[in-house]
Amino acid sequence: MFDYELTITTFLERATERFGHKEIVTKTGKDTLHRYTYADAYERIAQLAHALDDCGLDAGDRIATMAANHYRHYELYFGPACSERSVHTVNHRLPDEHLVHMINEAEDRLVFVDPAFLETVEGVADELETVERYVVLDDDVPETTLDPVVDYESFIADYPTEYDWPDIDEETEFGLCYTSGTTGMPKGVPYYHRKMFLHTLMHSHTDVFGISENDTVMPVVPMFHVNGWGLPYTATFCGSKLVLPGGHTSVDHIADLIDGESVSVAAAVPTVWIDMEKRLGDDEEGVLDSLKKTLIGGSSPPESLIRKYDNVYEAPIYQGYGMTEASPHLANTLMTTEAQSLPEDERYQLRMKPGIPAPGVRLELRDDDGEPVEQDGESKGEIHARAPWLIDEYYERPEATEAAFSEDGWFKTGDIGTIDEYGYLSVVDRVDDVIKSGGEWISSIELENELMGHDAVEEAVVISADHAKWQERPVAYVVIDGDATEDDLRDHLLQRFPKWWLPDQFIFVEDVPRTTTGKFDKVRLRESFAEEFGTLPTEE
Amino acid sequence: MFDYELTITTFLERATERFGHKEIVTKTGKDTLHRYTYADAYERIAQLAHALDDCGLDAGDRIATMAANHYRHYELYFGPACSERSVHTVNHRLPDEHLVHMINEAEDRLVFVDPAFLETVEGVADELETVERYVVLDDDVPETTLDPVVDYESFIADYPTEYDWPDIDEETEFGLCYTSGTTGMPKGVPYYHRKMFLHTLMHSHTDVFGISENDTVMPVVPMFHVNGWGLPYTATFCGSKLVLPGGHTSVDHIADLIDGESVSVAAAVPTVWIDMEKRLGDDEEGVLDSLKKTLIGGSSPPESLIRKYDNVYEAPIYQGYGMTEASPHLANTLMTTEAQSLPEDERYQLRMKPGIPAPGVRLELRDDDGEPVEQDGESKGEIHARAPWLIDEYYERPEATEAAFSEDGWFKTGDIGTIDEYGYLSVVDRVDDVIKSGGEWISSIELENELMGHDAVEEAVVISADHAKWQERPVAYVVIDGDATEDDLRDHLLQRFPKWWLPDQFIFVEDVPRTTTGKFDKVRLRESFAEEFGTLPTEE
Repeated sequence: MFDYELTITTFLERATERFGHKEIVTKTGKDTLHRYTYADAYERIAQLAHALDDCGLDAGDRIATMAANHYRHYELYFGPACSERSVHTVNHRLPDEHLVHMINEAEDRLVFVDPAFLETVEGVADELETVERYVVLDDDVPETTLDPVVDYESFIADYPTEYDWPDIDEETEFGLCYTSGTTGMPKGVPYYHRKMFLHTLMHSHTDVFGISENDTVMPVVPMFHVNGWGLPYTATFCGSKLVLPGGHTSVDHIADLIDGESVSVAAAVPTVWIDMEKRLGDDEEGVLDSLKKTLIGGSSPPESLIRKYDNVYEAPIYQGYGMTEASPHLANTLMTTEAQSLPEDERYQLRMKPGIPAPGVRLELRDDDGEPVEQDGESKGEIHARAPWLIDEYYERPEATEAAFSEDGWFKTGDIGTIDEYGYLSVVDRVDDVIKSGGEWISSIELENELMGHDAVEEAVVISADHAKWQERPVAYVVIDGDATEDDLRDHLLQRFPKWWLPDQFIFVEDVPRTTTGKFDKVRLRESFAEEFGTLPTEE
Repeated sequence: MFDYELTITTFLERATERFGHKEIVTKTGKDTLHRYTYADAYERIAQLAHALDDCGLDAGDRIATMAANHYRHYELYFGPACSERSVHTVNHRLPDEHLVHMINEAEDRLVFVDPAFLETVEGVADELETVERYVVLDDDVPETTLDPVVDYESFIADYPTEYDWPDIDEETEFGLCYTSGTTGMPKGVPYYHRKMFLHTLMHSHTDVFGISENDTVMPVVPMFHVNGWGLPYTATFCGSKLVLPGGHTSVDHIADLIDGESVSVAAAVPTVWIDMEKRLGDDEEGVLDSLKKTLIGGSSPPESLIRKYDNVYEAPIYQGYGMTEASPHLANTLMTTEAQSLPEDERYQLRMKPGIPAPGVRLELRDDDGEPVEQDGESKGEIHARAPWLIDEYYERPEATEAAFSEDGWFKTGDIGTIDEYGYLSVVDRVDDVIKSGGEWISSIELENELMGHDAVEEAVVISADHAKWQERPVAYVVIDGDATEDDLRDHLLQRFPKWWLPDQFIFVEDVPRTTTGKFDKVRLRESFAEEFGTLPTEE
């Protein structure tokens, strides 16, 4: 009779019809919070949709956001999407040339920008070809060279607080997010309604993150980063109380928000949770009492941290593994029946891995020839994925799309991994970072983790350097905080790895260059190593 | 690039790839269990698919099952579906003429039947027009008039244990189940792959039943009844241990299975759990120690039972509300943040209601004119539903389909309900059973529940009788187990209802006729009342 299309609009409907009284709380200043309800948000989302109509935005047109995690950004997650437009969440930390490329390629017609990022936009505005208007996410417009410009409150004011939401085909784009590779221009990843519906339903699966109406959910992870891991959508579909930290992501603010708003689920990259542990130590004094799930992504946390969050804070760490192209979720911490029966030490070995594929996701390891690699916890292969919420293609990049999929339609993640006998995925490297030494693979990530496990090592990065005989050999950049010689580090590594895994050089540095998303910038290190040392062995 | 179709096959793949070692346990006799793994099941499912090929079954062709909950029936949930055929699960308790109608209309080519139901099939075999062969679900064929006939083990033996599963369009039928209304021939409800994928993902939502890999799941509810509420699929997708009671559904057997197999989630109609309480009393002696969720559906349990399962057995009751047309799930017990803040008595009032619509489901109350009814916990209306797993149409019944949907595409459930200020749905009657007295509605179910709350009443059924002045008036059929007069019952009802709600007659009987699915047969009672008494008032 009538098809049921899987759309973002259904999230908004459920939150409003059943949980209109539940709160969305934003930290707006050092000592100020903004509180309103899903019902309040709905009215403003309707007003926003009317305002977009008035700007003449057609179905399929895009707007850009450059904003922290706050309620106005939340409204921008729904207003455009539910009125059949698309929201392009822009990472303001990218270099100017990337910003210009992305906004022009996406043909964004409006840019919604936080006062804090105004200067960034001003710096590129001259080169933006399709932007018709800027909307400052505040209740007035600060001094700016942007033109024409309006504040968000004026932009949506005076419009009706109801909207006749269109029936949307589930195969319609609702969002666009660029993935910044280590080289070249970022690639656009278009998100469709259907995929996000499925991702959102999966997110609340008991064996995934199990988000519930009973939870208070705080995405510390930026809303411009793969839809804030999808959490604003998940919280809305559940009717969970939502807490947004605004620009206040220092560990003190995060701790205050968890404590003050009784946050039960919070998501952030490992550094936030490492800093939190440094701040709280062994006595959290009730600060994390409400926290039941500490969601972590981006890279795997050390065992000591997992144990501390289990035993001292009683806020177990749940890892997620994913990527921009996967909306982002592919696998997560799940202690299976089998895993639970193992001795404690083995259990923690599994807890350090990103875990088990979520329902609907298939993961396979394949070698360079596309042949399956054994799932024995040792054999390495590129992680290939199938999932209902994986992208079909990059935006206007047929060649990148072609390169990203295997012939039989599996997505090539670019990650090197292992899968053990219990089914647990482990990510050991990036395809681009793995060191191919004499036909064997050496994992730069495993070497880095082991180095960072040494008491005197603060940071360690391992890159591949060209080698006259072995093609590639590892080289380590190390930041020392204490006493350790190269020999100490060699001895440390030899406890776990064979001799031929050891880096040919240890270079002690003050700090390590990072990319705009906070990862070690291995491309830059490789370039500077090549400039300085050329090809190994350098002493021949 | 490559579409991801939402299919039943994905459940089988996940169970086999990740949880091949997990068990499926079937009670095969009083003291015997059959155990094997998902990996074992997979091989036999592949063999079954090959056997169907060999019978010349084309894509879309149907096979019928008439079977209890056991591992061979489990295999029949996947073999036909994943090889692009459809499994028609037949309720063997229906009258012969219904069986004939259903199997002929579905054009079932094979019938898979338990030895226990052979006689039933033999009784109608002459009238089955499309059945080419019978397969007895055993390892040999007992004496039978069925012809041609083969035992299941011979049927699948000798085929390869791998199968090249076809890519299936998600809009393909994988199953068919008939819904037996109170009047007329049963109507066929076709199920599609996509809908069951979505239903299955929803089933594990933390705010629905939250089924996990860690669970041991036992559907006591028959597998011919709306896909066993979908639980065999949900357990498979999760990789949960699955326990099937076979034909052994008496409370002693169920208790033994829960205890012996450490069942954590079990699903049955209320009578099973009422009988369990009668058997165990206040001291369950560890029998239910493993049980964490007692799933219940079909009708709402009394408060005393809910309290007992909470406080004594620590196996809380979770209600589900649904129907054949909804695959079946629409709403379920969820104690929202708001509900949890209420005093205990009010919480239990909410626990007695079927609960909150599942994510993806929208429920509305509408009056006879299709106008929305207020959600104040008092106002009654017919429950209208939208859900991604609701059927599109009845099988070859355009008129029934037309009548079942509103003009704007909502499914008319035929249930009368209320929705309270906390969003909790309550089912107060069937549209066909509600008593329309002088323009007001009297709920037969509320009267029945209140009567059954009287110590001396064992069973009570309230029907509508034609009335010369008020159009319809309530009449109560009561089975007494103790001392109570009509006046006692009147006084009892007056404590809660206005005088005009009271039945015009109380008829004391030995027992009440039931339908084949165990519900009170109100149609038969209405007919016999009309025959005996005609139109009320009978004394004028």
